[in-house]
Amino acid sequence: MSKHLTKRAEDYSKWYNELIVKADLAENSAVRGCMVIKPYGYAIWENMQAELDRMFKETGHENAYFPLFVPKSLFEAEEKNAEGFAKECAVVTHYRLQNDPDNEGKLRVDPEAKLEEELIVRPTSEAIIWSTYKKWIQSHRDLPLLINQWANVVRWEMRTRLFLRTAEFLWQEGHTAHATKAEAVFESKQMQDVYANFAENFMAMPVVKGAKSESERFAGAEATYTIEALMQDGKALQAGTSHFLGQNFAKAFDVKYTSKEGKQEYVWATSWGVSTRLIGGLIMTHSDDAGLVLPPKLAPIQVVIVPIYKGEEQLDAISERVNVFVKELRGKGVSVKFDTRDTMRPGAKFAEYELKGVPVRVAIGNRDLENGTVEVARRDTFEKQTINQVDLVEHVTKLLEEIQENLFTKALNYRDSHITEVNSFEEFKEVIENKGGFVSAHWDGTIETEDKIKELTKATIRCIANDAKKEDGVCVFTGKPSTERVLFAKAY
Amino acid sequence: MSKHLTKRAEDYSKWYNELIVKADLAENSAVRGCMVIKPYGYAIWENMQAELDRMFKETGHENAYFPLFVPKSLFEAEEKNAEGFAKECAVVTHYRLQNDPDNEGKLRVDPEAKLEEELIVRPTSEAIIWSTYKKWIQSHRDLPLLINQWANVVRWEMRTRLFLRTAEFLWQEGHTAHATKAEAVFESKQMQDVYANFAENFMAMPVVKGAKSESERFAGAEATYTIEALMQDGKALQAGTSHFLGQNFAKAFDVKYTSKEGKQEYVWATSWGVSTRLIGGLIMTHSDDAGLVLPPKLAPIQVVIVPIYKGEEQLDAISERVNVFVKELRGKGVSVKFDTRDTMRPGAKFAEYELKGVPVRVAIGNRDLENGTVEVARRDTFEKQTINQVDLVEHVTKLLEEIQENLFTKALNYRDSHITEVNSFEEFKEVIENKGGFVSAHWDGTIETEDKIKELTKATIRCIANDAKKEDGVCVFTGKPSTERVLFAKAY
Repeated sequence: MSKHLTKRAEDYSKWYNELIVKADLAENSAVRGCMVIKPYGYAIWENMQAELDRMFKETGHENAYFPLFVPKSLFEAEEKNAEGFAKECAVVTHYRLQNDPDNEGKLRVDPEAKLEEELIVRPTSEAIIWSTYKKWIQSHRDLPLLINQWANVVRWEMRTRLFLRTAEFLWQEGHTAHATKAEAVFESKQMQDVYANFAENFMAMPVVKGAKSESERFAGAEATYTIEALMQDGKALQAGTSHFLGQNFAKAFDVKYTSKEGKQEYVWATSWGVSTRLIGGLIMTHSDDAGLVLPPKLAPIQVVIVPIYKGEEQLDAISERVNVFVKELRGKGVSVKFDTRDTMRPGAKFAEYELKGVPVRVAIGNRDLENGTVEVARRDTFEKQTINQVDLVEHVTKLLEEIQENLFTKALNYRDSHITEVNSFEEFKEVIENKGGFVSAHWDGTIETEDKIKELTKATIRCIANDAKKEDGVCVFTGKPSTERVLFAKAY
Repeated sequence: MSKHLTKRAEDYSKWYNELIVKADLAENSAVRGCMVIKPYGYAIWENMQAELDRMFKETGHENAYFPLFVPKSLFEAEEKNAEGFAKECAVVTHYRLQNDPDNEGKLRVDPEAKLEEELIVRPTSEAIIWSTYKKWIQSHRDLPLLINQWANVVRWEMRTRLFLRTAEFLWQEGHTAHATKAEAVFESKQMQDVYANFAENFMAMPVVKGAKSESERFAGAEATYTIEALMQDGKALQAGTSHFLGQNFAKAFDVKYTSKEGKQEYVWATSWGVSTRLIGGLIMTHSDDAGLVLPPKLAPIQVVIVPIYKGEEQLDAISERVNVFVKELRGKGVSVKFDTRDTMRPGAKFAEYELKGVPVRVAIGNRDLENGTVEVARRDTFEKQTINQVDLVEHVTKLLEEIQENLFTKALNYRDSHITEVNSFEEFKEVIENKGGFVSAHWDGTIETEDKIKELTKATIRCIANDAKKEDGVCVFTGKPSTERVLFAKAY
């Protein structure tokens, strides 16, 4: 594989695909649409999981695990959900292979081992979970039920892209049950806040919090709350959603509780999820033509130390000094790698860690040993600085915070300069086509107009922002009256 | 559901199933053979995972993620593996459902959406992983490759039991590649040691380390190293296995590397795994007629504090004191629950936490407040002690260690008193039938004898223990010469 990485300006999509493979994050597998997440990519996911899991537990949720398979009949129970999810998915029809009598050494499906009822590989777990909740919920004392699951799901996508849209992906799905509508609405908005907090404070990825229009809602939801991020190429990315499901699933699966007053009531539900798609968002928020740029809070390696030496004696002298720094930095919770490989020159190592987005690189050579100095380079700005060894630990820990902040500020400035208010459809098309980003426009509130705009421009309503202020205006497309602006964009 | 738990002596198997449901660990789902792991059971698995994951990383392994599906043709590549695993498994044949034209509101498989090649839901991942390693391994510099995966797998078992044998289960599977045979053998034995260390020091479950006889080996392995535990009913449980795979998978998938000397060589492989089955082992090692008994190191709740009060005022006074203990204990890394529910009497709470195996229970009432005392009860021995509040934190932390140790010692004594040397087949049958446990016997080393013994007694060779000393003798069944004893038992 060539070391050359396509430039973003040349072909953003090609840059993205190449970067993922060259930075050792993931690759396509022998199974159509399914990816292999390589150790370096998976380490980012583990860091994301750890933080999200902590946030879920802090807000009172517990993890559990439900079956991979959903019997077909359970999908039929909630009509909209079936419409939305049960169509393009992997279907298990048989439970045995046998030696193929016509083809020595080959296997074939055993025709005798046909399942009575087909099993669907879960595209999402509402159906199997709500059929279980029916057994778990009897009384108001069983509520709220606050459960999360970390799992793999499968959706038979025709056009796939690493991390952004794959047939199998990893995610978490929260499924909660509540006694009142108000509690369920509160929960769904709370989880939107948790996601926004994670995106902004850990991924350094600014997001707009908002509600989906009816046609973009989750099948079976009464409201879908979303966090929408903006990628460097001007396209939006739906990064996480939280659904208020009303009583739809409770009614479909007959889940009732006895209230304090002794009445039988249907419970209220939410579900919410984020997936390995976030890694795609992380890449397209910060990375550059030299490779990946990772925010320190999620970087598997925060600091790499590269020795510059000739011969083993010099390496030994450098190592002795470096091992002290490594210990000190690890003591402060910093993830450090000391790269002593003798099969690669320092320049090649520098390029490798740039490609892999390691936030801080420290180089130390023979002269540094004499002078008591080291060279510190930051990945986000490429700035280099020679500092005293005694200041290293403090300098690096501060620098990591600074990089985290700088990445967020940079992404926020880009995002904020790419929210454009338009007041005519001409302007709308012009901005969507040439500038990209979010277009803030009045809309008449109908699905017809939304569909028509999508057809003509490929832009969809990303959300009605939570902080959209009321403002009288007219729909950019139909001229009909409108009371607030919504955000349109082309999206991943 | 009745609160009554069947006694072990009455019906061990019934006790096991009831306990799992009553202690809120897991339950059967709407999908044949697949279980729902409930939050309390899943919390035990999370504690197991955290510790194992730490051990794997300490021994140089990284996590990655490979596809859920394996194309049928990849299974055909390694013949023995195909024989062993590709038969009883879930097969995906279609990728779409559609509305059933003959049955309004129902779905059916879309006959047009048939896959060209069937996909098998992974029963284990050697095939998909080795087809990937072919791309990753070129040079000796790419070795060793030390990768682990946390995943769900599916094996179409006909007779399933919660945790012990389920169609879908959660596990980790390590898959490593090495330049030399010696390194691969070392790795497979090292991981057996890691498993044994985890079983004994965290699960408090003594294990015998040994090698499997040829007929009990993993399909495609040249050696299978196992850890074998003994359950309270005298049956053995295979708790974890580590396989030296030789060059079988490297040859099947053509994975070669260029050695330092510039030669093309096949790589050497290992794989190793433990699963949610461990939870079954944990239950059957320690629990009793009152319910679950959990070793403190894996207990989701290590200490529960139950207030005994009349009226809110008393509860407030107790809470004020207890909150200080809770904070101090958490500061020491102890997981504490303060149960202030007003919907349940203290006695009912005591019974609940006994059932759930919480290692230490602290009760505090109005009189304790006056006297500066608390009552501390341990789950393993039911001993109760009144101690001074000022000593609580130190007492409890020590007690947790003591309980951990006591559980191990108790299980070890039971296990050691259930390894019986026999020198005739009459004795063999007598012990297997009436006493249970491991039978240490001479065996002539043939599969025929092994099969015959299994047929007659249901006992199988659990392992040839690592510490089996050389000793001349004659096979208990055929009278042919033998040089070492092997361990037989009935097994789960």
